[in-house]
Amino acid sequence: MGNAIDALKRHLGEVMDLQKALQLLSWDQSTMMPPGGSATRGAQFATLARVLHERFAGDETGRLLDAAAAETAAMAADSDEACLVRVVQIDWDKARRVPTELRAGMAEAEANGYGVWVQARAANDIEAYRPVLERHIELKQRYIELFPEAAEPWDALFDDYERGMTAAEVRVAFDRLKVGLKPLVAAIAANPEAVSDAVLRQRFPVAEQEACSRHLISDWGFSAESWRLDPTHHPFAASMAPTDIRLTTRYDEHDLGMSLGAAMHEMGHGLYEAGVDPALVRTPLCRGCSLALHESQSRLWENLVGASRAYWTYASPILRSTFPAQLGNVDDESLYRAVNRMQPSLIRVEADEVTYSLHIIIRFELEQEIFNGDLRAADIPEAWNAKMRDYLAIDVPEPSVGYMQDVHWATGGFGYFPTYALGNILSAQIWDRVLVDIPDLAARIERGEFDPLREWLRTHLHRHGRKFTPKETIRLVTGTDLDPEPYLRYLTAKVTGLYGAPVA
Amino acid sequence: MGNAIDALKRHLGEVMDLQKALQLLSWDQSTMMPPGGSATRGAQFATLARVLHERFAGDETGRLLDAAAAETAAMAADSDEACLVRVVQIDWDKARRVPTELRAGMAEAEANGYGVWVQARAANDIEAYRPVLERHIELKQRYIELFPEAAEPWDALFDDYERGMTAAEVRVAFDRLKVGLKPLVAAIAANPEAVSDAVLRQRFPVAEQEACSRHLISDWGFSAESWRLDPTHHPFAASMAPTDIRLTTRYDEHDLGMSLGAAMHEMGHGLYEAGVDPALVRTPLCRGCSLALHESQSRLWENLVGASRAYWTYASPILRSTFPAQLGNVDDESLYRAVNRMQPSLIRVEADEVTYSLHIIIRFELEQEIFNGDLRAADIPEAWNAKMRDYLAIDVPEPSVGYMQDVHWATGGFGYFPTYALGNILSAQIWDRVLVDIPDLAARIERGEFDPLREWLRTHLHRHGRKFTPKETIRLVTGTDLDPEPYLRYLTAKVTGLYGAPVA
Repeated sequence: MGNAIDALKRHLGEVMDLQKALQLLSWDQSTMMPPGGSATRGAQFATLARVLHERFAGDETGRLLDAAAAETAAMAADSDEACLVRVVQIDWDKARRVPTELRAGMAEAEANGYGVWVQARAANDIEAYRPVLERHIELKQRYIELFPEAAEPWDALFDDYERGMTAAEVRVAFDRLKVGLKPLVAAIAANPEAVSDAVLRQRFPVAEQEACSRHLISDWGFSAESWRLDPTHHPFAASMAPTDIRLTTRYDEHDLGMSLGAAMHEMGHGLYEAGVDPALVRTPLCRGCSLALHESQSRLWENLVGASRAYWTYASPILRSTFPAQLGNVDDESLYRAVNRMQPSLIRVEADEVTYSLHIIIRFELEQEIFNGDLRAADIPEAWNAKMRDYLAIDVPEPSVGYMQDVHWATGGFGYFPTYALGNILSAQIWDRVLVDIPDLAARIERGEFDPLREWLRTHLHRHGRKFTPKETIRLVTGTDLDPEPYLRYLTAKVTGLYGAPVA
Repeated sequence: MGNAIDALKRHLGEVMDLQKALQLLSWDQSTMMPPGGSATRGAQFATLARVLHERFAGDETGRLLDAAAAETAAMAADSDEACLVRVVQIDWDKARRVPTELRAGMAEAEANGYGVWVQARAANDIEAYRPVLERHIELKQRYIELFPEAAEPWDALFDDYERGMTAAEVRVAFDRLKVGLKPLVAAIAANPEAVSDAVLRQRFPVAEQEACSRHLISDWGFSAESWRLDPTHHPFAASMAPTDIRLTTRYDEHDLGMSLGAAMHEMGHGLYEAGVDPALVRTPLCRGCSLALHESQSRLWENLVGASRAYWTYASPILRSTFPAQLGNVDDESLYRAVNRMQPSLIRVEADEVTYSLHIIIRFELEQEIFNGDLRAADIPEAWNAKMRDYLAIDVPEPSVGYMQDVHWATGGFGYFPTYALGNILSAQIWDRVLVDIPDLAARIERGEFDPLREWLRTHLHRHGRKFTPKETIRLVTGTDLDPEPYLRYLTAKVTGLYGAPVA
């Protein structure tokens, strides 16, 4: 390897060390920190973030990149080194464009927004929340101005999560999804009693739920050697390294489905991070390519595997032996049906596979209007409620379960939501591609053989990390571009099986 | 407050944020990190330590200190601000004297030393370990040369742990201790069967040991609001903030005394950190004054409280109800005696109250000889064994339980050991002083009333943090200087009660 590439890697290694320290502060805050720690944790975050930004966005990084680029010019475009220079050049350019003062303003607005949101949501106080949204929108508009090359204003925000993807591309996919999901939602709504999840709503002691989650995800590759699983309020997965993955989950003594779903979902994220090529460790390429691709993995393991009939042939005996009193007499099919109960509802994070994407599309469309200047913060509540009626036939009784339900906007997270639904779409595209190479996948899952699937995903997706753009990576793993059809086919088959034929 | 003091505090606040992030990396490594995390953790430590050093030791700190000193000149010498400038001026001067290359060399030698030590100790391989000691001694000699003001070479090393104290002062105390302990050791050795700890060597399930530890230290002020207690290999206490204290402990299913002692000991450290004045948070004054004073607190709670007859009047019912099968028929006096079993032995960390300080004195005397140039690394094993025979009448069968037993020297920790025995000495000095103000302390402990003691310690010691030098702080809390007599009186009374009169 050349000297300049070496020097760049050393420098970026230090940047990554700081980033991982920041990540540990965050993981600790959500899992381990006693409440008394919050008084100083904010300052620790701010300092680490500032030091990290200084190290990365400074001129030194640019000089090292230029020198390394001279060395990688002769290397294969898909070599680790050429990808590193290419990706980091863009990271660096984006980081430098944002003035310190705007960065500080956004950080402050995020911190303030969270506190105001918690109180405003509890009190259904639209007026208290409005200035938070107005402030974020104003700051994001200034941010957008720094990226004049964006085709639409919103694209500048979205690019931070799905580099190189645009609202125009998302819109095509989501418009198709809206049309395709409508009859499925109608089928579910027409037959609400077809499926019951009552068997999962008994009392399940937390210790045994935890043991059960550990059993199920251990079959997929979780091991104490390289993984942790801890309880938290809002589950997430973090990677300190591909061999140090921190999953989090949550437990409700009266909802077994919640903890199993959370553990499977986060395990999918964890497997992506664990599968990155070790050669990329301590470089900015050592993580999942984008949020949508990340979500494709969590959804694939949670839904395509974990909510499939084949899986419940395998997993049902495990649940029956863990909970003999509650589930000893419940058959495989009943458990499969219970984890797949569907119903249009108010809350995104509690939504089923069919309605989930519609919750996202509502947010996507509102964000378009906001940043195109067609929707003021004051008018969001009414616009939200109208779309909930239109897409899900649901009346929003109060803002706390309407536009105030998510923390994302309260902390400035605009441009983020679509990645969830894109993950759904991609999960089915990837699944179809896996089936070409592993045609007996369902039979293998029935037998508890998960290694072939995990290794396929590692080989075709995980190992690349951030080497390629999201769109390049989607092509690599699916052989095609973003396409909602496989997801609609998958859902249509599932809904038909559970609720009967779609209602036109 | 003046602008310059404000600016200094902002700067030092960032330094402390980095230091706490480093501390969290360390705590996590010892308690939470899956083994797979070690591959990247070393680099994370190195980077954070380098960034921290750059921030603190740079010219900027000096400029801010000078400006702040102009403002504090008119303030009371014991004001937080004047103390901050005074203490940090010395911290900064010491940090700057060490060339980057020597600092890097020491860090590398520490990391290498640990690995070699683990293997050499397992194999009793003197020759493999010798170069590690030689390298550390050579580096420490270069370090010592940077502090020509030290009266004796070893003082330069000791100053990093007990600022302003010297080998000459320690020697006076330790020489007195040697004389005073000799007849106590003889009394114990003459009557080894007088006290049995068999009741603590039954089988005690770890979960119940943990519950018991939590119960006992909760009485002293441990609460989930601001504290954690986690298992680890080598127990320690860490403070992320006075309201975020991380204790660690260890469990052996066949040794109840070990886990209770460890929890009490670390709780003593934790109470010191928790008691620092909140006004000192995010400054370098926000921690215990010195290692010896810190150890005075761990020993005070572990021994003066936790191994006292009064305490076992209170605690015995708790143990009997936690472990009815094992301890249901064991009376208070038997438990008191069991936790106080004494016996000269090879291993420092397993030593009792009487022999412990002699283990330390051996190390102190050898370190003097090493850095005065009177003892070569190759001759340490024999010198060690001779002193073990002389002070403890014990033959060392092999190096792994002799001079190789501790990790400290393997990782360059010279000048550190004496702080343990100084802590013993100080704990008794402080205890005598507490009794003046709380004459019925024993009766209060019997009733489980620990608040008066804790609050006394907070008021007279903990709250000051690092505002004053160790010697000033010792004067503040004891009203006198370092004095081994109270400790010898305390031990003599205890040994006489348990083992009969000292043997002249």
